[in-house]
Formats: sequence, C-alpha cells, structure tokens
Amino acid sequence: MYFISVELQEKLRKIKMLIMDVDGTLTDGKIYLGNDGEELKAFNVKDGLGINLLHREGIIPAIITGRKSEIVNIRARELRIEEVYQGVKDKLAVYKHLKEKYGLQDEEIAYVGDDLNDLPIMEEVGISFTVRDGARTLQERCDYCASKNGGEGAVREIIDLILFSRGSL
Amino acid sequence: MYFISVELQEKLRKIKMLIMDVDGTLTDGKIYLGNDGEELKAFNVKDGLGINLLHREGIIPAIITGRKSEIVNIRARELRIEEVYQGVKDKLAVYKHLKEKYGLQDEEIAYVGDDLNDLPIMEEVGISFTVRDGARTLQERCDYCASKNGGEGAVREIIDLILFSRGSL
Amino acid sequence: MYFISVELQEKLRKIKMLIMDVDGTLTDGKIYLGNDGEELKAFNVKDGLGINLLHREGIIPAIITGRKSEIVNIRARELRIEEVYQGVKDKLAVYKHLKEKYGLQDEEIAYVGDDLNDLPIMEEVGISFTVRDGARTLQERCDYCASKNGGEGAVREIIDLILFSRGSL
Amino acid sequence: MYFISVELQEKLRKIKMLIMDVDGTLTDGKIYLGNDGEELKAFNVKDGLGINLLHREGIIPAIITGRKSEIVNIRARELRIEEVYQGVKDKLAVYKHLKEKYGLQDEEIAYVGDDLNDLPIMEEVGISFTVRDGARTLQERCDYCASKNGGEGAVREIIDLILFSRGSL
Repeated sequence: MYFISVELQEKLRKIKMLIMDVDGTLTDGKIYLGNDGEELKAFNVKDGLGINLLHREGIIPAIITGRKSEIVNIRARELRIEEVYQGVKDKLAVYKHLKEKYGLQDEEIAYVGDDLNDLPIMEEVGISFTVRDGARTLQERCDYCASKNGGEGAVREIIDLILFSRGSL
Repeated sequence: MYFISVELQEKLRKIKMLIMDVDGTLTDGKIYLGNDGEELKAFNVKDGLGINLLHREGIIPAIITGRKSEIVNIRARELRIEEVYQGVKDKLAVYKHLKEKYGLQDEEIAYVGDDLNDLPIMEEVGISFTVRDGARTLQERCDYCASKNGGEGAVREIIDLILFSRGSL
Repeated sequence: MYFISVELQEKLRKIKMLIMDVDGTLTDGKIYLGNDGEELKAFNVKDGLGINLLHREGIIPAIITGRKSEIVNIRARELRIEEVYQGVKDKLAVYKHLKEKYGLQDEEIAYVGDDLNDLPIMEEVGISFTVRDGARTLQERCDYCASKNGGEGAVREIIDLILFSRGSL
Repeated sequence: MYFISVELQEKLRKIKMLIMDVDGTLTDGKIYLGNDGEELKAFNVKDGLGINLLHREGIIPAIITGRKSEIVNIRARELRIEEVYQGVKDKLAVYKHLKEKYGLQDEEIAYVGDDLNDLPIMEEVGISFTVRDGARTLQERCDYCASKNGGEGAVREIIDLILFSRGSL
C-alpha cells in the first residue's frame, strides 16, 4: 500500500515513458576515479529489477545524462534500455526528440533527476521526480521526492509508485 | 540476549540449511560496473564469520542468485559454501532440488532474500527472512526482518538468531 | 533560501577563491587500496557541478592536499581546476603563495578541510569551513560546518552558500 | 573536550601500544571482491592521521588480522606500522609475542576489534575497544565502544581518547 494523493495517482496512471538521469539518480553520485580515469559506477540491483518490471508493463525506460561513460552503455544493455543519450548539454532538446519519436504527450512522460541541469526537463514533463538527496531546488519544485537516496533504490521507489497507480503491484 | 518470540525460536531450532540470495542480501545491492562489465561486489566480513559458525553447527549454507558472476564463486569458495546456484530464473525449482538432495523438510530450511524474485521460495521455506532494506512486500510477508541492511551484517544477524535459538551463542 | 547570519553573508560575498582539501572533503575519506597501491577515490557529482558554477561566477577553485595521487589530477582536469598542490606538508606556505599569485587578501579566500593539518590555513583565511564529519577541533573553530559529510556534497553545500550570498542561486 | 570517567582516563594514560584488527575495524568490513579475488579495502584517511599522531607520542601501533592481503602491507607501510601479523588464527599467541618482544605489561596495551575472534585478546589487554558496529558480545564486554563505525574513523576516535588522556590533544 502506498499513500499518495488521488491527483498524483491520476498523473502516474498516464505514464508511458520514464526518463532517468544517471549520476546521483541511478547511482549514489559517487564518481569512482582511478589512475586511468573513471573506473566504476555503483548501480543498484533493486532499480534494475524495477526497470525489468517497467518493460513488462510496456513502459519505456530512457536515460539522459550529462556525463559520458562506457559503463552506462553496459548497464543499459543489461537492462534492455534502448534510449540512452550521454554527454548531453541540452537535456530539453533530447526530451523533445524522444517525445516526437514515440508520439508522446508531456503528461505521458515522467523524469527523475538529482541536480540543477535536470530542472528544464523537469518543468516540461508530466511528472517530475527527484531523489531524497537531490538538490534543494529540485526538492522544492518536483512533483514527488523519493524517500530514498540516489543509487539506494530511489528509482525503484518511483517505479513502484507508477506500477501501484496502475494496480500492477 | 535476543528478544524473540517462543514461536520463532521453535522454528529457528529446526533449521538445518540456510539459503541466501546474493545482491542486496550478502551485498549492499550495489552493482559496481566498470568499463569491462561487472568489476566488484562488496561482501561483509561479519557475514563471513557467521557462515563459518554455521559450518561448525553442521548447518548447510547455500546460495541461489538470479545474476551470474565469477565473484560469487570466489566468495563461496572462501566461505566453503558448496551449494551455489547462479543465473537462476526459477528459484523455487532449485529450492526443491536442494530439499530433495539433502532429504530435508520445508521447516528445516531458512531463506533470506531482498526482492520480489525471492517471494516464491520465501513462501515455501520454514522461516523466511528479509533485510532491513528489502522490498516492502517482503517485509510484509517474511517471518522476520533483520534490523541491518543487506551487506551490512543482516545475514550475520540472522545466523546469530539461529545459533541463539540452539543455545550456541 | 538559506538561513545564515548577516555577518556570514557579508563574509561570503567577498570570496574570490575557494581552496579545498581532497581526502575527507572532496571524498568520503576512504582510501581505496588495491594490491598495487591506491586504486580509487570516490568524488561526488554534485560537488563537481558546484565547481562548474564557481567558474561561471569567476571564483577560483584551488586544491591543496597532503597526499599525492594521479587521481586528483584527473578530477582537477575534468573540473578545470588549475591550482592543484599535492603532497603538501606545509599547507600555509602554499596558501601564502596562492594569495600572492592572485593578489588576494585573506578575506577574499575561503577554505574547506576536514582534519588537523587543515587548521593553520583555516586560521588565516577569510572564511573557514569544515564538513559534518570533520575532526572535532575543526568543528569547534571553523566559521561554518556543512550539514553534509565529506564526499556527500559538503563542498557543493558550501558553494551554494557562496552563490546564495551573491544572489546567484 | 572528552567526557570520560577518571578510571578510564587512568587506564588510557598507561597505554604504550595500540593493537588493531583490520576488516571491520580499520575498514568498514566490506570485502571488495573482483573477478580475480580480493581487489580493494577501504581505509579511512582520519585513522591514518591518528596513527601518525601515535608515532609522535611514541605509542607503538600494531596490526593483527585473521585474513591475509597484500593490501594490508601497503597500508601498513604507508603508516609506518612495523608490527603486522596477518592470517592469524590464534590472536592471543601473537599478543603474547608482542608483549614479550617489547617488554610490556597487559595494562600498557590497548586493543580494538569488531568480532568474536577478537574476544580472547580483548580479555587480556589493559583496555579493550570495539567499534559502533562491532559484534554485540564485544559491545557488552569491551571497556569502551567507539561512537563511530569501523572504517569511518572509529580508530581515530580511540586514538584521540588516548592522546586526550595524556594531555596531547
């Protein structure tokens, strides 16, 4: 059981695509650097299971991130995420591209991010999420702030809300 | 001293095998990915000492996990865990195999997991455990929820309960 | 909105350079050692975004650290930090060098550190910061102690304060 | 300022050697395994600074650990710890060897550990410490339990107490 407002539930029910930021959202925001550059990112196994549940519901998962790393491609492949945009300076432009490509309305798209560069897209989408340790401004302006930190299952929590609103959980 | 119900203590006393999930249970659920794929898993030294105590009591430790990694084999070898099943889609089938192989009853087997794919097996075993940060559904349906998170000593806490119930702690 | 004293706000407004310690300040203090020596440091993506904001404001970021690692050079390059001093025994000497090089006054420089070797420099600069898990002595003597731990966004929090005082946040 | 009993302060003042466990004490207890075996241990920079302070006071730091890893040698070399005993089954025997080698009395030696295999030595030394997330039995039987977890500065906290008792902090 989740206690969420009828209004939020209505909005959640319309979602057909979930766009996710990476660092600080699908990870704990730690950039593990070694002597040869970026070495590791720490993803969460529960977020992964959630993304598998999204597939089963026919909801499209997508990734838009400002950084760029082969590691993200590996994780995306493992989770069968086909829409992966890295090294993105203008997240809003990619958002518009995705919307058009899939013929979606703003209210059919949810976004979860953790920092200021996520704001423009968060102001467009149907539902905007942030993580518990997201930047303060995002916490003030999002539709829903997860109770978990990035990388500790926040994305799974959001997916659970989406599924719950559809009666699929 | 542990304050647990007489009923739980009765159940614990019958346990002859402890089956464990890996990611999120024996680890903190973090999938450390590098540029060449999975690089690291973070196990807990206290869980390891606990598994050594299980051996001493003649209780059989076993691992069933949905993912697949050489890292799990390395940890299992170090802890002398002989029953290791990786890449398992149907955990219940492996459970039945193990039960038969060792001629055990459901009530002689305990299971600890952290997510939805652990539910089918949790509904069969004698005692089902989850970790503090286990999926909500598991927390609602398990016999006992550890006070520690996965990878932070939750499995050790469960082993301590088993040993305490036998007067071996 | 941040609730900080008028006095602190006055001080913050004068800052033209932010000098940062590394281990325990820009990282969580964990020294990840492998079989060949130091392998990893875990930086925070939010601190990184903050340092980019500093550049945009014309505030100079600098690093002074007692340890020495190629990893720090990699992170500094990524964040366009030009003033990087590693393996420093006498942090105060480097501080004086930086002050002279840029023709700055003490009150135009802020410093954030987490341990005793940061004290001498903290007593000279205009504003001294420490992190939530900084050494007790630093917490007692600094101008402001971040509410976040080192490596968990403490530096970003400090940068947000600086920007807020200038009306740039 | 530390608020500790006069009795504990008396005991602390006599300490000439601090013996430390590794996994779970100088680290957070995480065993980072990769595809080729143990890859990483995460030490804490603040513990390191503390051990340097011990040297300055003429107090001898020593390591006794049940596991065995080149990583421990690397950290010990960095911190100039000369007495390092790895792969130790009988910690008490090594303790007696160290006591004799340095001509010390029990009350001149402190020990910090986090799990059951540390108990025998903890019952012999002058002062026994454990970490906040140490095994429950250790918390019940030690002289002092640090407020910090292993790997998060617990050893530094203990060193600070020793130095404080001597008026060196």
